[in-house]
Amino acid sequence: MKTVIDLNADAGESFGRWRLGNDEALLPLVSSVNVACGWHAGDPATMRTSTRLAAEAGTALGAHPGLPDLAGFGRRALALSPSEAADACLYQYGALRGFADAIGAEITHVKPHGAFYGLTMRDPAVADAVAEAVASVSPELITVLLAGPTADRVAARGSRVAREAFADLEYDEEGNIIIEPDPLPKDPRACADKAFGIVEGRVASTSGTWLDVDADTICVHGDRPNAVEIATAIRERFAAEGVRIAPMREVLSGR
Amino acid sequence: MKTVIDLNADAGESFGRWRLGNDEALLPLVSSVNVACGWHAGDPATMRTSTRLAAEAGTALGAHPGLPDLAGFGRRALALSPSEAADACLYQYGALRGFADAIGAEITHVKPHGAFYGLTMRDPAVADAVAEAVASVSPELITVLLAGPTADRVAARGSRVAREAFADLEYDEEGNIIIEPDPLPKDPRACADKAFGIVEGRVASTSGTWLDVDADTICVHGDRPNAVEIATAIRERFAAEGVRIAPMREVLSGR
Amino acid sequence: MKTVIDLNADAGESFGRWRLGNDEALLPLVSSVNVACGWHAGDPATMRTSTRLAAEAGTALGAHPGLPDLAGFGRRALALSPSEAADACLYQYGALRGFADAIGAEITHVKPHGAFYGLTMRDPAVADAVAEAVASVSPELITVLLAGPTADRVAARGSRVAREAFADLEYDEEGNIIIEPDPLPKDPRACADKAFGIVEGRVASTSGTWLDVDADTICVHGDRPNAVEIATAIRERFAAEGVRIAPMREVLSGR
Amino acid sequence: MKTVIDLNADAGESFGRWRLGNDEALLPLVSSVNVACGWHAGDPATMRTSTRLAAEAGTALGAHPGLPDLAGFGRRALALSPSEAADACLYQYGALRGFADAIGAEITHVKPHGAFYGLTMRDPAVADAVAEAVASVSPELITVLLAGPTADRVAARGSRVAREAFADLEYDEEGNIIIEPDPLPKDPRACADKAFGIVEGRVASTSGTWLDVDADTICVHGDRPNAVEIATAIRERFAAEGVRIAPMREVLSGR
Repeated sequence: MKTVIDLNADAGESFGRWRLGNDEALLPLVSSVNVACGWHAGDPATMRTSTRLAAEAGTALGAHPGLPDLAGFGRRALALSPSEAADACLYQYGALRGFADAIGAEITHVKPHGAFYGLTMRDPAVADAVAEAVASVSPELITVLLAGPTADRVAARGSRVAREAFADLEYDEEGNIIIEPDPLPKDPRACADKAFGIVEGRVASTSGTWLDVDADTICVHGDRPNAVEIATAIRERFAAEGVRIAPMREVLSGR
Repeated sequence: MKTVIDLNADAGESFGRWRLGNDEALLPLVSSVNVACGWHAGDPATMRTSTRLAAEAGTALGAHPGLPDLAGFGRRALALSPSEAADACLYQYGALRGFADAIGAEITHVKPHGAFYGLTMRDPAVADAVAEAVASVSPELITVLLAGPTADRVAARGSRVAREAFADLEYDEEGNIIIEPDPLPKDPRACADKAFGIVEGRVASTSGTWLDVDADTICVHGDRPNAVEIATAIRERFAAEGVRIAPMREVLSGR
Repeated sequence: MKTVIDLNADAGESFGRWRLGNDEALLPLVSSVNVACGWHAGDPATMRTSTRLAAEAGTALGAHPGLPDLAGFGRRALALSPSEAADACLYQYGALRGFADAIGAEITHVKPHGAFYGLTMRDPAVADAVAEAVASVSPELITVLLAGPTADRVAARGSRVAREAFADLEYDEEGNIIIEPDPLPKDPRACADKAFGIVEGRVASTSGTWLDVDADTICVHGDRPNAVEIATAIRERFAAEGVRIAPMREVLSGR
Repeated sequence: MKTVIDLNADAGESFGRWRLGNDEALLPLVSSVNVACGWHAGDPATMRTSTRLAAEAGTALGAHPGLPDLAGFGRRALALSPSEAADACLYQYGALRGFADAIGAEITHVKPHGAFYGLTMRDPAVADAVAEAVASVSPELITVLLAGPTADRVAARGSRVAREAFADLEYDEEGNIIIEPDPLPKDPRACADKAFGIVEGRVASTSGTWLDVDADTICVHGDRPNAVEIATAIRERFAAEGVRIAPMREVLSGR
């Protein structure tokens, strides 16, 4: 069983007139935040605010690059080439870096969003291109990928990888996560149970079988209506079980 | 008369399937390049290529943030608030920084594009917000503004400012530049004459009066069909007159 | 005092993952609806749904073309030329027409949104271009403009114009409406009072003076959080005062 | 052998500052044109111009809806659901209809563009949704699909379908067309040969085998640099062979 793990949230997913999520409440509850960078969600003012909120809360700041599909919230598959995937990461990482630089904050990680994340799982060339793009910026910069063979392979090639598992998503029997286009509330206690199971190294699939999982970080989706309750429940459960929550850089240093 | 001045070009203004300009030929002819960052022009692949071309040519790399108006090429006025203007600079500067970081290049300056440039000239609060956003990233980072009272005022407040004049645009009697939505070819020799006049400290208005101008950098628009010929003519004229072309950082250090 | 007037609502202003307004509750309360057409808000699925809801509720269907500025919700001024303004109306009117045609519904009116509406008030050439574009589609199609000199002038030139007043916005002393970027709830009773004042031919400015107003239609903004309560209060007040609510085509036929 | 066939061109694919194709020369050479509708290419001013050019040339006007991917020119696969595909057709068809209505022109057909076309070939539910959306507007409106089993199936279900073949693309052994992201010039004479082969009912695959093809219309891509030369060569060949070129509505009436 792990004694320390990162808790990350996707956030900054408002856009202009449209509000989504409750970053102000959510960011202090997690150790890492992945901020949307304008392609699937997140306008510049929101990025600036999320960057400031992360700095104030002491939450590790990450970029959450998405596919160029605002209308689909980046949750519809778009066939980027490996080169386009690398460019999408560099562009969006950089855009967030503008706001980080303006207040002297640091970006520690990059995590593709939605269908872009799905593409990295399905297409090894895309996963490599993403990890190499991230590493080209700095060898310290971490790529977040689904815990599993792709993440292991990318890490073995020399990239810094944080392996991720999901407390608020279902897994199919092959260990793939099942994306919800429009997430509904989930039982916080069940999510906390799932999170603790991940710390113990296992997660149940929808068919009831147990899958082994070796995760550095656990995700809560900020656009789920009760994300704050879920993150709170996980924190309480981890506190009760003696599991420490720490940013992924610290978790990786102990791997 | 000045003995050294920067020659800058707006470039990287292709978008996806659509090509514009000839960066490969133009970048080696100028000492600074302003690369479009995706809002008015410039897709990620183009930004990557322009960044590489600048590095290969030894041309100082700058961001060329535009208004969020691809259909209007950023040449239609959009009423950004000062805060939105600052965010637009940080976002687009950062986006380019992603590509610069990936190859270890440096960004030396930021120059608003088209109607965004016009907005900085007309709205002092926007000019201040832009210059402060640029300075918040690094006190070394230069803001490029039209040579004139706004640039002087912003510089007096402590920002690093490069004062710009235009070899390929007309000036009205108040010293405002006249933007062409869709630039036509211009006589390279006339542009070279105008550039040399700028070095001497003066530029003619459309009504024939002479305006005083104190410029650190002279612009050639990369989307003008004969931009390469114009830049070549200016270079030849400057060589003949003993005017040295150098990046704006060097020009400013001698100011 | 008028005995019949149209009550219109801006609606269909969700976009992809982001919800805004409560069309299902609001549309049955008004006699006309202006549906966002994708430029400032409104994705295709939302347009299809709003079109169907209007048909089911017997609400007259109108297009609500906005500026091409999703990030600014069409509430930032963009300097469209008259020709660009006409094209923006035709494109967006047409886009809604696709969904109307698919279910055999009719579009009765076109009302520019936000800063596009403001542009028609300030720039006579734009107002003319918009009204002519609308009339070019069909002489029956109505252009909705702020009740005042511009609307009178456009109507005098032969276009069908519905003069509009606002129950949920403030007026300055010159009779201009004051746009809120992000509308807050308003007292429904006060809005109903203002609506009834409009029926009587007058509206108070923020400085307390009374302005004459001759309106065919009264607007409630669908993105105001309590739009449904406001529309309900207006309906009740009109019922109590014997004012009939009817689509603008019927109101105009009695003018 | 057929004695009459439609010749269609994709056109109107400029966007704002960026020009592509030569509609003015190309439209008079073909009997049908498919005009880009703003999602993959084509801004409102270009749509207005293409609509007028088609009317002046007597060319049958069609909508050419694309995926919402300007940066990818609609040539990257995006996983639209059947419902999203239907909405994409209605929105873009309608947008063009705005410009057609303004000058009293008619739209005769709808042809998905690029990767959207590819999606209709691969996903039967999408093909059905597209054809049903088109038919919901009017039973006269024609859906253009690749000549082959999908087109046959959709036609058998009652939709008006024009079966298409390509004079300027390669076919693989399964009869799928091979899309070029950035088309290069092709030998006009070879394209004319291929076009005449299609009239005779056959087309060669890249591996040299002959495929049967039963086409109502033959496409020339307007963004191929020598599209005008190709269309001219096909016209000359057809004239020499006694093959008449006529709009697809007329071709279908004789089927």
